[in-house]
Amino acid sequence: MAVYTEVSDEELAAFVAQYDIGEVIAFKGIAEGVENSNYLLQTDGGSFILTLYEKRVRPEDIPFFLDLMEHLAARGTDCPVPIHGRDGASLRELCGRPAAIISFLRGMWPKRILTDHCRQLGAALARMHLAGQSFDRSRANDLSVDAWRSIFAKCADRVDSVQAGLSAEIEAELDHLARNWPAALPTGIIHADLFPDNVFFLNNRLSGLIDFYFACTDFFAYDLAICLNAWCFEPDRSFNVTKARVMLDAYRAERPFSPEELAALPLLARAGATRFLLTRLHDWLHHPEGALVQRKDPLEYWQKLRFHRKVTGPTAYGL
Amino acid sequence: MAVYTEVSDEELAAFVAQYDIGEVIAFKGIAEGVENSNYLLQTDGGSFILTLYEKRVRPEDIPFFLDLMEHLAARGTDCPVPIHGRDGASLRELCGRPAAIISFLRGMWPKRILTDHCRQLGAALARMHLAGQSFDRSRANDLSVDAWRSIFAKCADRVDSVQAGLSAEIEAELDHLARNWPAALPTGIIHADLFPDNVFFLNNRLSGLIDFYFACTDFFAYDLAICLNAWCFEPDRSFNVTKARVMLDAYRAERPFSPEELAALPLLARAGATRFLLTRLHDWLHHPEGALVQRKDPLEYWQKLRFHRKVTGPTAYGL
Repeated sequence: MAVYTEVSDEELAAFVAQYDIGEVIAFKGIAEGVENSNYLLQTDGGSFILTLYEKRVRPEDIPFFLDLMEHLAARGTDCPVPIHGRDGASLRELCGRPAAIISFLRGMWPKRILTDHCRQLGAALARMHLAGQSFDRSRANDLSVDAWRSIFAKCADRVDSVQAGLSAEIEAELDHLARNWPAALPTGIIHADLFPDNVFFLNNRLSGLIDFYFACTDFFAYDLAICLNAWCFEPDRSFNVTKARVMLDAYRAERPFSPEELAALPLLARAGATRFLLTRLHDWLHHPEGALVQRKDPLEYWQKLRFHRKVTGPTAYGL
Repeated sequence: MAVYTEVSDEELAAFVAQYDIGEVIAFKGIAEGVENSNYLLQTDGGSFILTLYEKRVRPEDIPFFLDLMEHLAARGTDCPVPIHGRDGASLRELCGRPAAIISFLRGMWPKRILTDHCRQLGAALARMHLAGQSFDRSRANDLSVDAWRSIFAKCADRVDSVQAGLSAEIEAELDHLARNWPAALPTGIIHADLFPDNVFFLNNRLSGLIDFYFACTDFFAYDLAICLNAWCFEPDRSFNVTKARVMLDAYRAERPFSPEELAALPLLARAGATRFLLTRLHDWLHHPEGALVQRKDPLEYWQKLRFHRKVTGPTAYGL
């Protein structure tokens, strides 16, 4: 929840004048999304999102993200697409930051997750994975197993202040994940952050996926493992196996699992929980004074990790 | 900058179903406004603002605010109007809070104030004052001279931690204001919070006034004194007498000043600065941990107060 960069009227008018989208009639900061500054831009030509990329996004990665959205949308994935200016460019600069106008996606993210949301999400994720296979670019996942030790190192000395004994538990988990990390699994473009607030529904139908700014090249099943963590636990933090089953079934109806993927699912679910436990711990312990961002409870992911650690095989996920 | 209340899909759908505004196609929290939760609501019938009134607004005052907007709009003031449901009501409840849908006002608030903005504002304020004269209701200003001592009392012991000597200075100012408060001046409905973020412009023309949730019955000239404070100082905190002159001239071309109003202007300018100095000090010293609201620097208003204290007559404002 954040607008970091304030755009003056003159800067906005000069920016929008480079596009064929009409005259600005409204411009309002959106109180969602924690990484970038997002504005709703309304012109007499329609509604758009103007994004200013803040420091967490590497400028050199932005063309990958924008081109990916365009590639996926052209192949049937419902997602926003960058708008091109009269010069053909979709990425330019505003207020000293990289900035792009993207199309407006109808729908709202679900505040209360229903089983049918999980079913539709599973199918949409599989179709997105398939649509990404013809994208000829790649980006390493800089938030995967190799990166976790260095994130942990930045907060290890204070982790036990959040929860006694947590530091040793994370150490052991990182060892386990590194030792057992799959050598090879079906790989391609993954979203890597497909939480409910990045999936829109309209009249109970999935209307699209947003926020591709963590997209990268990694195991398809790891994307699904992130979704298991983000979608299949109830507000009381209990695991809902029905939601998991319908999500995985809907996914494999579109893109069947290899036996290795299926076998790796429990480990990848632990990995997904560890990734968000670590980044949330880091943000919790390095929360800047006065930042307009709600800190997310890291212990939610510690509890999810503990659930997955007890899992002995993919049947725990309803398969 | 805040969305305090999260509205579920089901609650939103049930709420909107009470209006003839079509089906919801998007719903996004707006990162502006610090008092209430504001959402941009888009339906196939158009754009609207959905406001949930948070605790700073007294529920019993809301009908006054909504009816006032309707009254002013019907008399030529450009401002949002409440949308009535099929049952005729414009105020109902959502997520346990009073809530209303209001019309969407085109335009953006000016991030950089130009002299011509001040001119247009002065004229619009005078016309709003005139339009309010036929409104047959009143609301006491609960943030005027009588209230300041109790606000000050809530933070007096910590005021000197913000600025050494400030507490004694405020004491003396409150005495001065109480002793010299005008017995009677032309009175009517005032906006009482007409800062730049509450005034929209479109293509350099004032397109409307928003956020009437401090509106009350008080001296017209006090409203103008608040605008002098909010619009006529430069970012370096120097006073721009040209902006003040064009604002006041544009105002009195629509509604001439009485000699008493003119004479009271320096005192009311001090009063306006004191009001925002005190509420900002209060919010600064009582900032809740984790609140998603940017604290505003109280000392900005201390510096403005010091400017007005040196003023000996209305000529300092260009008259």
